Amino acid sequence: MSTEMEISDRYRTQLPQIDMPPRLLLGPGPSNAHPRVLAALGLRQVGHLDPAFLQLMNEIQDLLRYAWQTDNRLTIAISGAGSAAMEATLANTVEPGDVVLVGVKGYFGHRLVDMATRYGADVRKLTKPWGEAFTLEEIRQALETHQPKILALVHAETSTGVRQPLEGIGDLCHKHGCLLLVDTVTSLGGVPLFIDEWGIDLAYSCSQKGLGCPPGISPFTMSPRAVEKLHQRKSVVPNWYLDMSLLTKYWGDERIYHHTAPINMNYALREALRLIAEEGLGARWERHRLNAELLWAGLEDLGLVCHVAKEFRLPTLITVRIPDGVNGKAVSQKLMHDYNVEIGNGLGELAGKVWRIGLMGYNSRPENVLLLLEALKRVLAAA
Amino acid sequence: MSTEMEISDRYRTQLPQIDMPPRLLLGPGPSNAHPRVLAALGLRQVGHLDPAFLQLMNEIQDLLRYAWQTDNRLTIAISGAGSAAMEATLANTVEPGDVVLVGVKGYFGHRLVDMATRYGADVRKLTKPWGEAFTLEEIRQALETHQPKILALVHAETSTGVRQPLEGIGDLCHKHGCLLLVDTVTSLGGVPLFIDEWGIDLAYSCSQKGLGCPPGISPFTMSPRAVEKLHQRKSVVPNWYLDMSLLTKYWGDERIYHHTAPINMNYALREALRLIAEEGLGARWERHRLNAELLWAGLEDLGLVCHVAKEFRLPTLITVRIPDGVNGKAVSQKLMHDYNVEIGNGLGELAGKVWRIGLMGYNSRPENVLLLLEALKRVLAAA
Repeated sequence: MSTEMEISDRYRTQLPQIDMPPRLLLGPGPSNAHPRVLAALGLRQVGHLDPAFLQLMNEIQDLLRYAWQTDNRLTIAISGAGSAAMEATLANTVEPGDVVLVGVKGYFGHRLVDMATRYGADVRKLTKPWGEAFTLEEIRQALETHQPKILALVHAETSTGVRQPLEGIGDLCHKHGCLLLVDTVTSLGGVPLFIDEWGIDLAYSCSQKGLGCPPGISPFTMSPRAVEKLHQRKSVVPNWYLDMSLLTKYWGDERIYHHTAPINMNYALREALRLIAEEGLGARWERHRLNAELLWAGLEDLGLVCHVAKEFRLPTLITVRIPDGVNGKAVSQKLMHDYNVEIGNGLGELAGKVWRIGLMGYNSRPENVLLLLEALKRVLAAA
Repeated sequence: MSTEMEISDRYRTQLPQIDMPPRLLLGPGPSNAHPRVLAALGLRQVGHLDPAFLQLMNEIQDLLRYAWQTDNRLTIAISGAGSAAMEATLANTVEPGDVVLVGVKGYFGHRLVDMATRYGADVRKLTKPWGEAFTLEEIRQALETHQPKILALVHAETSTGVRQPLEGIGDLCHKHGCLLLVDTVTSLGGVPLFIDEWGIDLAYSCSQKGLGCPPGISPFTMSPRAVEKLHQRKSVVPNWYLDMSLLTKYWGDERIYHHTAPINMNYALREALRLIAEEGLGARWERHRLNAELLWAGLEDLGLVCHVAKEFRLPTLITVRIPDGVNGKAVSQKLMHDYNVEIGNGLGELAGKVWRIGLMGYNSRPENVLLLLEALKRVLAAA
């Protein structure tokens, strides 16, 4: 235990207290957390096997089942970003050689392809231009052509602002002995979503969008049908951290230690979900719809055009076409610099073509819409 | 966007505000976070590509380099538990068939074996009873016998309370063309540790022990030698979330979006590391040593015996033998029930044989030692 070695002070920087700018986050996420959620986040910790914490985990599971409208027993929070929960769906169910059909109509479809490939899937792509949704008929034909073990779709594409209708797809999948995997990152808590009624077998989301919680913890759910595929695996899950056969022993009755849960992030998630139970899903979805319509109307008044047809337009994430001759990045930078309002730039194929405006969770409020419209009006007038 | 479907209120539980018991966490972790860290955690968010946040990421990298005493450019915070950072070391460097030699002398050695196996390593084990450390000579012989690509050792075994001396092992490894991977989960911030001087190529830790931060974000570092093995991979990293070739583009100069960073956890980590820079590593290690010695002497006065020989005994995590005839779990439960003091029970081979007492980070204070000793004395007298 001697410390004769010399300690280097090369990186011993002396820093001031954190002093972040007061941003209003109206981009693709994170959105600002509800003040009650931030208060819960900063509470003193207990241990990850403390009876009080185990009780809180149970509460989170029930509140997630409400938010997702599911009875799935395997409904938990993954200790990581939404992308970790995304990877968990594939890591647990894909075995090498499995045909996985991915609907690609935006950036996150491509991410699903990348991840599924890493787990040895025989990946097939069903593609559509960025800004459109698949029809039920297109899905039906693709299922017949590819006979996949898993069909993966993005319910709410954060890169395009498109809502993919899901009614009827689960039934089609199950007729083909296929699991339905759905990305609900930008829909959970803001857009109508019925996991069980729609026959969704695997879903994941994030905390920092429709739930109004900081990022760092991510909802995950798996139907009994998907759990059966996990149980029938011939090979061990090739990812220790996201292995559901281990994680369910911590979240289930056995309470066997797996990893140290992010205690405070679980506090925050519980408070965010409690706010949803208080508000009620119907009222919450309606609030998101009304504030989105207020924004759409205001954008039209400014002469701006939404990229997505109204029928498939998300209320949580709106893509707005950058007018000819306008420097999109300069506008978003000026909004942030002059007014502390963050909106997103385009991603992937839509880079330089659209802005992305998020009205999610706590931030879906009319006063935020008014501020954004007025700020945007002034910045565009000066552009 | 119609919502004709009926919303089920089955799981719409109405819960009270979170009201956690005021635990003093003197178990194997988490330890209580410093109040300044909790205050930072609850600050309002900015976006994960906000210039203010990118600056904060740079600050975290430098402060981690100080805490770890390394110049490694690839020094970042993983968005997950320490186990995710552990998995990241193996996921990025192991290719199928690589011989990985793991020193197993406790629970977390077994975890390294499990993870390395999932990434296709040809795993060889060097074992020792739970409570002992490897000698340099044992390591030398094992390197000659197995000629591994990676040697993985646990610096501070949380399950046994043993400090594994590391001086000289890096040189041996490099002579054999082998990388040295070290688990510093229970040493970083509390025990002398010199990543560069000791020739460590891969290391990970957690936030909730010696750093005095809540769990949910985890230090990770990789030497240029380890980065070279990553660059020479023939196969893609079989884990998207932990793929350093992607993560370094977000943490490095390119700032390419990978996943949404846990903003508030990064605030907390920055504050925890700032406290280390203020205190100074030398003073901090000395504080941990002095408080551990205070505990060791007090335990001896109570007639209790530490499981590990003094030379290899960690100051951060102390294993104490449960006296014959005493119900260990009943004692730890009574400490929690009567005094809100959490200590840990034994894990794995030491289950039922020891208690595990943590004095880590903010919790390594003499007043905590006095309280624990007095509470333990009363509970044992009543047992």
